[in-house]
Amino acid sequence: MEKVEIKDGFWSNYRELVRSEMIPYQWNVLNDRAGITIEKERTDGGSPSEKSHAIENLKIAAGRTKGEHYGWIFQDSDVYKWLEAVAYSLQEHPDPELQKIADETVDLIAEAQDEDGYLHTYIQLRCPDLKFKRLGEAHELYCAGHFFEAATAYHAVTGNEKVLEVAKKWADCLVRNFGPGKIEGTDGHEEVEIGLLKLYRSTGEKRYLDLAKYFMDIRGSVMPFFKKQLEEDPHRESAWGIGNGDGRYLQADVDVTKQTVARGHAVRQVYLTTAMADLAAETGDQEYLDACKRLWEDVTKRQMYITGGIGSTANGEAFTSDYDLPLGTMYCETCASVGMVFWARQMLRCESRSEYADVMERELYNGTISGMALDGKHFFYVNPLSVDPRKIKNDPLKTHVKPVRPSWLGCACCPPNLARLLTSLDQYIYTLKDDTILVNLFIGSEAEFEVSGSRAFIAQETEYPHDGTIRIKVTGSDGMKVGIRIPGFLADDGVVSSATKAAYTLTRGGQKVETDPEKGYVYLQGPFTGEEIIFRFELKPELYAANPFVESMAGKAALMRGPVVYCLEEADNGKDLETLAVSADTEFTYAREQGTLGNIGVITAKGMRKKPGENTALYRKIRSRAYSKTEVDLKWIPYYAWANRGEGEMTVFIKYDDFQLE
Amino acid sequence: MEKVEIKDGFWSNYRELVRSEMIPYQWNVLNDRAGITIEKERTDGGSPSEKSHAIENLKIAAGRTKGEHYGWIFQDSDVYKWLEAVAYSLQEHPDPELQKIADETVDLIAEAQDEDGYLHTYIQLRCPDLKFKRLGEAHELYCAGHFFEAATAYHAVTGNEKVLEVAKKWADCLVRNFGPGKIEGTDGHEEVEIGLLKLYRSTGEKRYLDLAKYFMDIRGSVMPFFKKQLEEDPHRESAWGIGNGDGRYLQADVDVTKQTVARGHAVRQVYLTTAMADLAAETGDQEYLDACKRLWEDVTKRQMYITGGIGSTANGEAFTSDYDLPLGTMYCETCASVGMVFWARQMLRCESRSEYADVMERELYNGTISGMALDGKHFFYVNPLSVDPRKIKNDPLKTHVKPVRPSWLGCACCPPNLARLLTSLDQYIYTLKDDTILVNLFIGSEAEFEVSGSRAFIAQETEYPHDGTIRIKVTGSDGMKVGIRIPGFLADDGVVSSATKAAYTLTRGGQKVETDPEKGYVYLQGPFTGEEIIFRFELKPELYAANPFVESMAGKAALMRGPVVYCLEEADNGKDLETLAVSADTEFTYAREQGTLGNIGVITAKGMRKKPGENTALYRKIRSRAYSKTEVDLKWIPYYAWANRGEGEMTVFIKYDDFQLE
Repeated sequence: MEKVEIKDGFWSNYRELVRSEMIPYQWNVLNDRAGITIEKERTDGGSPSEKSHAIENLKIAAGRTKGEHYGWIFQDSDVYKWLEAVAYSLQEHPDPELQKIADETVDLIAEAQDEDGYLHTYIQLRCPDLKFKRLGEAHELYCAGHFFEAATAYHAVTGNEKVLEVAKKWADCLVRNFGPGKIEGTDGHEEVEIGLLKLYRSTGEKRYLDLAKYFMDIRGSVMPFFKKQLEEDPHRESAWGIGNGDGRYLQADVDVTKQTVARGHAVRQVYLTTAMADLAAETGDQEYLDACKRLWEDVTKRQMYITGGIGSTANGEAFTSDYDLPLGTMYCETCASVGMVFWARQMLRCESRSEYADVMERELYNGTISGMALDGKHFFYVNPLSVDPRKIKNDPLKTHVKPVRPSWLGCACCPPNLARLLTSLDQYIYTLKDDTILVNLFIGSEAEFEVSGSRAFIAQETEYPHDGTIRIKVTGSDGMKVGIRIPGFLADDGVVSSATKAAYTLTRGGQKVETDPEKGYVYLQGPFTGEEIIFRFELKPELYAANPFVESMAGKAALMRGPVVYCLEEADNGKDLETLAVSADTEFTYAREQGTLGNIGVITAKGMRKKPGENTALYRKIRSRAYSKTEVDLKWIPYYAWANRGEGEMTVFIKYDDFQLE
Repeated sequence: MEKVEIKDGFWSNYRELVRSEMIPYQWNVLNDRAGITIEKERTDGGSPSEKSHAIENLKIAAGRTKGEHYGWIFQDSDVYKWLEAVAYSLQEHPDPELQKIADETVDLIAEAQDEDGYLHTYIQLRCPDLKFKRLGEAHELYCAGHFFEAATAYHAVTGNEKVLEVAKKWADCLVRNFGPGKIEGTDGHEEVEIGLLKLYRSTGEKRYLDLAKYFMDIRGSVMPFFKKQLEEDPHRESAWGIGNGDGRYLQADVDVTKQTVARGHAVRQVYLTTAMADLAAETGDQEYLDACKRLWEDVTKRQMYITGGIGSTANGEAFTSDYDLPLGTMYCETCASVGMVFWARQMLRCESRSEYADVMERELYNGTISGMALDGKHFFYVNPLSVDPRKIKNDPLKTHVKPVRPSWLGCACCPPNLARLLTSLDQYIYTLKDDTILVNLFIGSEAEFEVSGSRAFIAQETEYPHDGTIRIKVTGSDGMKVGIRIPGFLADDGVVSSATKAAYTLTRGGQKVETDPEKGYVYLQGPFTGEEIIFRFELKPELYAANPFVESMAGKAALMRGPVVYCLEEADNGKDLETLAVSADTEFTYAREQGTLGNIGVITAKGMRKKPGENTALYRKIRSRAYSKTEVDLKWIPYYAWANRGEGEMTVFIKYDDFQLE
């Protein structure tokens, strides 16, 4: 139905990195091949992080080898996310050898599956009597969801029927077991809903949509069920006890449509809203949509870092409260930013509003890809807004913050999540709605759609985000429309309106388009005959300040250019980044640079360094003007490129001062 | 040898509050009388915090009643600190009824003591086989130290001989058991050194000083001993395992004289340095003194909040690293500030430098007394720099921060520590060194000393800290000197020099004293014949900024007037204190106010409130000037008086902006 091919100066490199480095690298990890150091979990020595063992677990469950399960209760999902990334990668880049490995992996998974369709090696191998009996924390349905996502993708790309059969058999097992009068519960970690909806779209079987909706609707009242399961658990001494809380951590404390603020574990929250928005799009349910819009507003306007990072605390990897965005102890898990992209995509299906695409773009250029080193083989779980290696070392609240990316993570959810996002990036550029193609992202690409019964072609050529010129060519019938997103960063206050027209030019076949943006999109009416549409704007380095309610960012500013967040690193600016300052008068220069960080855009400026001078007092009268100031050369690099030059300080926010004052 | 009587507008009230409210209140707590709610520990449900049981533990150990020990391993120390406070209180205010209760408590303690002098009800009642065998965490010597402090004080004031006998018997038990060739270890929590040095001064027995020195010197190499004890511990499943770490938490990772930065548990650190400075003063050991000076510099210039609070993290109640002073998650335990006063006093014995007294004063007017409500019956363990009750609720990193003082604490170290400090405040005002009396604190008082073989009298009259006029009368021989402290806050940059003379006038018998300050003291030479010495300076509200290395305080300022730190409360300024701002032009007005908070000094000013306005975006271009500003009336109260009007926001730091800029 739709086909999008990416040919982009920025993103093709990332996608190639995933294909050529990360996918084979992760395959080695999953198979416990030598030479990979896995970062131990911070929590305790008892976490399973010596090796992955994920393929071996499947082999044992399949009866091919003997042994014991090793790893997290959700270890299977690492394999499924890898398979999903492989599927997308094969679409762009056919690779018979890789496909053979993936086919064999499907065979292995099929062999590991029980007769009745059940598939979860941890429970199968360790405690088969606990099937569906420790749902608050067992991640059975979570892993199922990831498998459904992988299966539908792999089937769509390769035509492999077996993978879809395994998925349907597993999903039908869930349909038989869950629902009113059956097991009246769900999983402690959302994800199965997303997978079921994909399986529904792949198979057309409405029972999968119905089950997704069932899991969604029961969530707010599931805690007594979890508690009862834990009480009856024959091995409860080995349980974490997640089901014993108030449910906030797993978004189970109130009906999902009644949630007013994002809460608990951030990844769970955004997987929930991704599925809820998907359900809203599929069913037209207004309650789901209203809840999603309310939560979107809360997350993006009150609980999100400028990088798109979410989750203000490591404790529960969770949201805390509105405007609580500490700069040193934040979590900002890569998976949570990936989840934000999923959610934004579903919101765009529900409503043509550019704010969703603005956030999607913020996440893509910042909070997601910062999770991967430029070599494609080192990964962050936590994406900090500031790091001082000396302070991390002695601060128990920052043990989760790493100054450089480890080569693999004991809890390995993030790297494959990023891989599947990047390999499927083509799915995010455009949104097809009835007779309209929304251009959400400015990514060099060629696409083909069926719009109102006829074929339409759209192509973009651009050097974005380095340059603000996007050349678009469309061929399509007179019934169709193309909506071009006007980025929020073109409006001084972030809100696109008719006044924003001063910040860009849009021409079609040489003629200026004067139409006002509607909810952030400018619509062009067909027919399109391939005439050139040029969307052009200036990309300037801009200082951003946070809403005054954000205490941690008072007196500080962050530098962005277009969608890209910049940061200062010790490698360019020396130690003690907290002593650096810019002011309203600071002039910034942007330049392309080819070096150890690849081809990046850097920003330089004359700034100030404030030092205590001779007097080392900790607190001094402001009017004493006791601090020395020296002019210094400052250099920013894109946030996504940080921590690729060894251990050092980094900060996104810098002091914003009136130099004259002190 | 010296006798100081306090008659002071500010401190006499506090001392009376301790005498009339807190001492009887704590006696009720120690005896588990009805009507007291004890705040549960944040750590877990298993902490012993249902009741105190401290007196009952002694009764059981004495064989008077039957039962089991209840409470912390250091529960006995609550009784000893109470007894010490009673001693000081009786000195100022004889009270036969209270003395009878205290005498009976001494009898009870004597009965609880074992034949060999051992005294620690937790070990005696629960696991007598563990005597001196779990030293890393058993707090036996810690409790002994507190008992020695109490015993020497109670003996000095009341002449009770039994209490000193019990102390000597216990100390001799330690002398018999510890030392080279005997038990070559010490306690995981410093304190016994302080107690032994007091016992040495009280009895003249050098073996107590020698043992204190032994405990000090072995500390840096004690970890293998602790580990070995834990390995051999027959009940090690019940141990916390403190002895298993790297020793940093208990200042046992390097030789104490080699420590370069304050580390680990903050109270332990300052009890250690208090004893080390005391040893330096007693023995003239330069290594001890050098280490103390290095650590003093580190704590007060790199790891201390403006209130004097120390301990940047709740995790281990500990120091983190230099300049790491977060405003929302700090610990700032009351005990740690009390310990800073102890330490400062010992430093003044070693070196006549006003910086020590400056910090002592900062602690007294801020970080210590903020630990007690104005009713003398509610107490803080943690003294935050900012509180938002809404954010505490959802932030797992702030569960230790309370918005109002609980009526008692499960771990009740702080309230009696504050009580014994306040009741012994007379010991801190002056330091007698050879022929010189240093006037450290400006507190209305009458004192008598023996200086160079003759009697000297000194009296102060002042309304300080409300007013900056101190009238001093001295009578004394020609051989003596009086050193008057020039407060650091009179110097713009905090460092007193000859230039500071412009900020005060000092007259003696009507004649201006022109002498330059030496290390912050101006010295007057005897003879003194009661002529009036008037020290006068203006106390103005002053905004203070932190050293640029302190990231959390960038763009913020705190208001002080003289030694008193001020804060903003929701009760006076409405919600969302983080939106308030002052600037370089803000004019402050100081006034006395009589109200619900008693007789306090308040500061008012016209400030600004910045609000997001219509646009609710989280991040906006600075040049968009998108935030609305309104002039507001601001009102500050002294930090020590906060949280006496119910739950609400509070902040010490306020945004410091150039209003013209935005």
